[in-house]
Amino acid sequence: MRRTSARLADGREILYFDAGDDAPPRVAVDRRALPPRPVGAELRHDPLLGEDIAVAAHRQSRTFLPAAGDCPLCPSRPGRPTEVPEAAYQVAVFENRFPALAAPGRCEVVCFTDEHDASFATLGPERARLVLDVLADRTAELGALDGVRQVYCFENRGEEIGVTLHHPHGQVYAFPFVTPRTARMLAVATPEVVAAVLAAERAGPRVVVAGDAWTAYVPEAARWPVEVHVVPHRDVPDLPSLRPRERDELAVVYLDVLRRLDALYAAPLPYVAAWHQAPAGVRGFRLRLQVFSPRRAAGRLKYLAGTEAGMGVFSNDVLPEDTAARLRAAAP
Amino acid sequence: MRRTSARLADGREILYFDAGDDAPPRVAVDRRALPPRPVGAELRHDPLLGEDIAVAAHRQSRTFLPAAGDCPLCPSRPGRPTEVPEAAYQVAVFENRFPALAAPGRCEVVCFTDEHDASFATLGPERARLVLDVLADRTAELGALDGVRQVYCFENRGEEIGVTLHHPHGQVYAFPFVTPRTARMLAVATPEVVAAVLAAERAGPRVVVAGDAWTAYVPEAARWPVEVHVVPHRDVPDLPSLRPRERDELAVVYLDVLRRLDALYAAPLPYVAAWHQAPAGVRGFRLRLQVFSPRRAAGRLKYLAGTEAGMGVFSNDVLPEDTAARLRAAAP
Repeated sequence: MRRTSARLADGREILYFDAGDDAPPRVAVDRRALPPRPVGAELRHDPLLGEDIAVAAHRQSRTFLPAAGDCPLCPSRPGRPTEVPEAAYQVAVFENRFPALAAPGRCEVVCFTDEHDASFATLGPERARLVLDVLADRTAELGALDGVRQVYCFENRGEEIGVTLHHPHGQVYAFPFVTPRTARMLAVATPEVVAAVLAAERAGPRVVVAGDAWTAYVPEAARWPVEVHVVPHRDVPDLPSLRPRERDELAVVYLDVLRRLDALYAAPLPYVAAWHQAPAGVRGFRLRLQVFSPRRAAGRLKYLAGTEAGMGVFSNDVLPEDTAARLRAAAP
Repeated sequence: MRRTSARLADGREILYFDAGDDAPPRVAVDRRALPPRPVGAELRHDPLLGEDIAVAAHRQSRTFLPAAGDCPLCPSRPGRPTEVPEAAYQVAVFENRFPALAAPGRCEVVCFTDEHDASFATLGPERARLVLDVLADRTAELGALDGVRQVYCFENRGEEIGVTLHHPHGQVYAFPFVTPRTARMLAVATPEVVAAVLAAERAGPRVVVAGDAWTAYVPEAARWPVEVHVVPHRDVPDLPSLRPRERDELAVVYLDVLRRLDALYAAPLPYVAAWHQAPAGVRGFRLRLQVFSPRRAAGRLKYLAGTEAGMGVFSNDVLPEDTAARLRAAAP
């Protein structure tokens, strides 16, 4: 993997990641006249819940569902410069122009491919593996920054969950705090609990994909009508800790899961893919990919309203065993 | 307030609440041939977060956006029986036919008025006061049931947050556990913290409505683009503990807040109104009404996706001070 760092016109960093030896050097220059970068988000502390909220008023003006010809994540063409100066790329990462966090945090956009109409599920295993290596690279580099406590890699896919850019991409947030969910998991799920849950699920009725180093399953107490956890058999804290063969298998299992999700309904499934990783320097947390969707039936979504958003109580209208059976039967 | 209890055809309880002396006796009989009540929800424990999830597969068949003429919350007419057998009512409460919880929990529907096209904001202060008395009644009665730990009253309003029935109504959930949000508030926000926050907000720039016994303000670390907390000046744990004059003022302040919310945009605001109350028998929690909306601009919603639903981290694209100023300026 070759890694090239450059700067966009307003000073933001862009990184190109290329597998193989045939990619051209990444030397294109961003000649746009960009406005200065907005003042970063402000972190405010909620004394009732003990959590930090990022207030970022500048994000109201962020790009919203542009026409395909105006996509800022596509490669640049003559006369149509985008956020990616090169005319073609494999995987590109750049600092978000409308970040929800400011230093010591950081928000990055990860473009999985230069093909606007692709999706993660349609990537080949080599490209999926490259994306995983990129997420590992970003986790290691951002996690080592002063003030960064936790690196979160995720993908939001689908207008139904508020995605404003259709080009296949993920995001990396480097948080200056440990996230509420991770703090809760650290307090509740000891390594022994996590190992016991994985063993029980591997022997149970909710396995979706069983690999040598990974198992994908629908959790017994799934919160979402579609929810799959992809968990390593080895107790590793984060993506950088994965061995090459574990990464190879993860790419295959991940693609398998995503293709099964897209086979559930006539339209591609809206989903969040969330990488739960150990905070920097914290022991006792096992890496976990959680993929979930609010789609509860064709044409029906689950909303987070009074019970979920108000009280943190989830109810699930779909039996997890049924979801697992449907995913096993789905032709990827 | 007169309170009449009766049974629907499938055995569910219905309660009528009438203010004044001129309401007729509530004696109408439900003669529908209803199917047996569905098997209740199953509670499953999530060992990674230490929380309970209600799995209720029968809810997939619940009524979804019926035409106004088929509204199950309107009064019954000859030849068109609904969930409310009477031909007119003030406030009616009945057990949800598609409950998200089963015994020892309970889910109730609270119809604020028999006028299909009304909303809470258009109720008069007397009816709003009656609704508050009804919520206090339900909190006291359900909170005393064996196995019930916490009573949660709330209103979901607007298709944008998944409301499936437009008739103005709220809900009451009696949980067999303390909700995750309340548990967190009990652990973090001591009575001293809550009092200090209220004092600071009353003296600060985010007050929306200032009463003698209540203050409505936008919290400094608001999670939502529109969020208002209505907090009593006296340290009371729940709605049943409120004195008559506190209830009178609450009705007025609540209506004032809701009307300001609806004045923000051309269309009525989708919102969740969440009553945070002390769990049964627990000290050290102050009653709080939290009203919030995902609308971040005309035609734009905030979605709970990767950061919020994945990690519990909220970012807000609107400055709380700006929201407070807009609400103060809104003509109710």
